[in-house]
Amino acid sequence: MDAFEAIATKLDVREFASKKVPGEVKRKVLEAARLTASSRNSQHWRFILVQDRANLKRLAADSTSGKWVEGADFAVMILTDPTVNGNMIDAGRALQDMELAAWDSGVASGIYVGVVEDAVRRDYAIPDGLRVSAILGFGYPKRRIVGRKNRKPLEELVFPERYGERLQPSNLA
Amino acid sequence: MDAFEAIATKLDVREFASKKVPGEVKRKVLEAARLTASSRNSQHWRFILVQDRANLKRLAADSTSGKWVEGADFAVMILTDPTVNGNMIDAGRALQDMELAAWDSGVASGIYVGVVEDAVRRDYAIPDGLRVSAILGFGYPKRRIVGRKNRKPLEELVFPERYGERLQPSNLA
Repeated sequence: MDAFEAIATKLDVREFASKKVPGEVKRKVLEAARLTASSRNSQHWRFILVQDRANLKRLAADSTSGKWVEGADFAVMILTDPTVNGNMIDAGRALQDMELAAWDSGVASGIYVGVVEDAVRRDYAIPDGLRVSAILGFGYPKRRIVGRKNRKPLEELVFPERYGERLQPSNLA
Repeated sequence: MDAFEAIATKLDVREFASKKVPGEVKRKVLEAARLTASSRNSQHWRFILVQDRANLKRLAADSTSGKWVEGADFAVMILTDPTVNGNMIDAGRALQDMELAAWDSGVASGIYVGVVEDAVRRDYAIPDGLRVSAILGFGYPKRRIVGRKNRKPLEELVFPERYGERLQPSNLA
């Protein structure tokens, strides 16, 4: 599917089938992260690939909002350098590319940011200079995905030229 | 091009041709933002579409790292709610989707985050409750794009199971 189709159809999934994701898809996901742009090309992000069942279970235990990651086929933890300007934006860019690369291959994903800081840092040996920015869980979806996206209309989200101005058809002509 | 190809080939561009970007591509870019996931589907982001030449010039004047935006065909300012957990990650996700949707249509882009806060807020009527997270400039590239991405190898960026462990071929088998 083309990039726009992937963006338009991608849904968050947090329940996964037991079917294994092939190594080549995992590589594609990580390559997508690697090839993402970052602030001044600093490439400050690092990624921990978690596939071991016991480690996925521990990741779930170390989370406040990601208990579902225990059922993922694999997870990727994004670490960023908090001293880099825009480092959380960079985390968001890399994670979006990973999710789209997976989706493009039929693999679904979800993300969470709520972790028990001390526990995660200890269990995954995170150095002091890096922040745990987000964690993604990947796998084949457990159910057929039939969701429709629930989003506000463009006119509520986009303003032409100045905040509060009304978007007109002529603005996108 | 498929999503992975878009991700893999996308380069940052800050010099644009004078050729106009069709309205349908602008709409696609904004739709991509609208359709992006956000924290608890809060859709807290808002977008200002800047196309007027005088306003693009002002945007450049109001920036510390985005003088080049003056030459863009159009720009999109991303505003986020700083009280939402992970709001900068959401900004990064939306901007990545916008850039990929544009790239997919042959339109290049660059981003910057350095703005003169007071000036931008005044000139674009940004409400107090929203943060200016990033600004993107879009247009057809001025030169043929022949760049190759300069990135660290996967082994320097990705660790299996714990930070510092060495990535092995068997981890992606």
